[in-house]
Amino acid sequence: MNTALAINLPRLLQRIQALADVGAIDGGGVCRLALTDADRDGRDLVVGWMRELGLEISIDAIGNVVGLRRGLEEGAPVMTGSHIDTVRTGGRYDGNLGVLAGLEVVATLNDAGMVTRRPLAVAFFTNEEGARFQPDMMGSLVYQGDMALQDALDTVGIDGTTVRENLERIGYAGGAPVGDNKVHAFVELHVEQGPLLEHEGVTIGAVTGVQGIHWTEYTVEGISNHAGTTPMALRHDAGIVAARITCFVRDLTLELGGGQLATVGQVQLTPNLINVIANRAVFTIDLRNTDGAVLAEAVRRTFAFAEQAAQDEGVRLMHRSLADFAPVMFDERMIARVEQIATGHGLSVRRMPSGAGHDAQMLARICPTGMIFVPSVGGLSHNIDEFTNDQDIGAGADVLLEMLLELAST
Amino acid sequence: MNTALAINLPRLLQRIQALADVGAIDGGGVCRLALTDADRDGRDLVVGWMRELGLEISIDAIGNVVGLRRGLEEGAPVMTGSHIDTVRTGGRYDGNLGVLAGLEVVATLNDAGMVTRRPLAVAFFTNEEGARFQPDMMGSLVYQGDMALQDALDTVGIDGTTVRENLERIGYAGGAPVGDNKVHAFVELHVEQGPLLEHEGVTIGAVTGVQGIHWTEYTVEGISNHAGTTPMALRHDAGIVAARITCFVRDLTLELGGGQLATVGQVQLTPNLINVIANRAVFTIDLRNTDGAVLAEAVRRTFAFAEQAAQDEGVRLMHRSLADFAPVMFDERMIARVEQIATGHGLSVRRMPSGAGHDAQMLARICPTGMIFVPSVGGLSHNIDEFTNDQDIGAGADVLLEMLLELAST
Repeated sequence: MNTALAINLPRLLQRIQALADVGAIDGGGVCRLALTDADRDGRDLVVGWMRELGLEISIDAIGNVVGLRRGLEEGAPVMTGSHIDTVRTGGRYDGNLGVLAGLEVVATLNDAGMVTRRPLAVAFFTNEEGARFQPDMMGSLVYQGDMALQDALDTVGIDGTTVRENLERIGYAGGAPVGDNKVHAFVELHVEQGPLLEHEGVTIGAVTGVQGIHWTEYTVEGISNHAGTTPMALRHDAGIVAARITCFVRDLTLELGGGQLATVGQVQLTPNLINVIANRAVFTIDLRNTDGAVLAEAVRRTFAFAEQAAQDEGVRLMHRSLADFAPVMFDERMIARVEQIATGHGLSVRRMPSGAGHDAQMLARICPTGMIFVPSVGGLSHNIDEFTNDQDIGAGADVLLEMLLELAST
Repeated sequence: MNTALAINLPRLLQRIQALADVGAIDGGGVCRLALTDADRDGRDLVVGWMRELGLEISIDAIGNVVGLRRGLEEGAPVMTGSHIDTVRTGGRYDGNLGVLAGLEVVATLNDAGMVTRRPLAVAFFTNEEGARFQPDMMGSLVYQGDMALQDALDTVGIDGTTVRENLERIGYAGGAPVGDNKVHAFVELHVEQGPLLEHEGVTIGAVTGVQGIHWTEYTVEGISNHAGTTPMALRHDAGIVAARITCFVRDLTLELGGGQLATVGQVQLTPNLINVIANRAVFTIDLRNTDGAVLAEAVRRTFAFAEQAAQDEGVRLMHRSLADFAPVMFDERMIARVEQIATGHGLSVRRMPSGAGHDAQMLARICPTGMIFVPSVGGLSHNIDEFTNDQDIGAGADVLLEMLLELAST
């Protein structure tokens, strides 16, 4: 183990800045929704860096990009990576850090003239965010085989276009085979996106697993009518049903307690006019929990309440699943390895679950997988003010470097 | 009194159909939002008819159009009319019926070669609906002098453009003076837009007045954050506050009872993504009541609840008034006249308040004013399925004819 090796933090920060300039929005945030022109420009930039670093690039049919650094031996690579798509008002670290830190590890090894025993790979996966196409984590889900490629390609986004046509349009419908990849182990460096590490003054999170996620889109169909002439008792208002369900899931989190989360982040009324009772409400519910049984209870009770609320108002209720991922536990040896390496570097470290979904949870189904968290200032993420201190980025990347070296050597 | 005169129903229905073809939407509805190209096309059609009928046309600076039929004497005209703008998913009768029935009265008098003592006028007022620019009833409000012309012209609509630039664009920024009009009396024929007349099997409503209307736009500013990593207790979710207020006003109507109405028809979350806590919610509340004191209580309690809900969630709350009209009582002699004429025609009639706002309530501030209602099938309005039976249209137009003749003769 060469513990003297260290990443070049200014070079890593430079790449983070350069990628953040692509799709930059006022106030410091980034908008590179999956498979948009901005995403293409970001991909082109990262692929260019991969080529400069001598990686062999393969792009598969769902647009996942893998840059391979050959080892002394053939075989399954040790892989790191994440995603570079963002939400509409995203930050510069979410996803991007994991990919660019992977490139920085490669650059560091290149500078040192070091060749690992096993191959190393740096990957970025398509549409992790799910902000334009659902489900989220689509690229890694297809990669490990739990979603059929054709279903993913046929997915219609919020703008009515498909994954397939957008992949073709931006030139990332690749020829590499999907679904028969062997990976020796997978490690992802990511910002926490929550307040815990900062709150406790800890630098490194050894991620134990990922919460279960249940996304549902509800459609309520009522009857439009005049807001001034329709007695309250005769209304079939789609909007009030959406509001009642929104309040219910918030109250349910209080009742269930623990780590139960519920978010209604998207609502669209029709016709959406001040003096017309809405005949249609489309909204989403995001439920998460590390405890699969409690999550299932939250899902069941939400459905039951929604049915009752719709019946009380005399409206029609439909729902469809946009994502449904059970909680994931990471490999104990990988978790322990993150702890040991962080401690060896003199860094404070704690075990913690991930609140957000990550590509790593998909890879966990096919190989030993771990994640390294670094603090998010104020816990902010999916927000243009997302920020992680430079020294924490350096610390996380150094832990990633050593972990990849260990995995690729043994 | 010439009670032998009767309107030509097929001719009136033909004009209703022709106007409904302008801005027609699938399924039978109409979309002619105020001062759009579709509204211009509708205006051009109606103004063309006015010219064919020999009316002298004047257009004022807020785009109100008045067609004058001279009488034996000079002086203030007896006026009828309504509006021809619609909501986004409107019907063909709301507003349009009152204007086109007025033209039909003129056509009937022309056919009979009859000249009234006082002048007659048929008017349509700009932006009655308020679906694109607030407040609603803008044209008639400026006409009677309670809103300054410049304020109305400066109003910015939902698409970010002003009333002024749209009036100029569609060629309806007229040169007639605004605000110094004398009107002898005003009568408006309108569909009920509610279920009462149909439910009771009554043909004519003698409208006693109009509910008070209070429109407020609320803006809630919270903090965007990741739906999976932000503990419930640390959230500042603009969306949940909007939902809580929406539920509160619905529950408040049950508590206040009587005729208290409340509608949240418009909601916009930002960034409006499934996995991002909303940092902004903009929504509207429409409160109405015939009882001004109860309406004021509803307004006060809604404000108080909203402030508390915002405080509980740790978000910022702002609100601005979009419309605030006290209840209006019509002239008792005008109400009685509608009843008597309907009865004289062998029609069933009942007194009733109007749930919707109407241009007539603005005219009521400057002259004796009355309204005639005809039934709305299923109570539907602001809905593409809005419908009124042909015979009811004919009955209402005949009552209007006789009422205008009486008023113009005495």
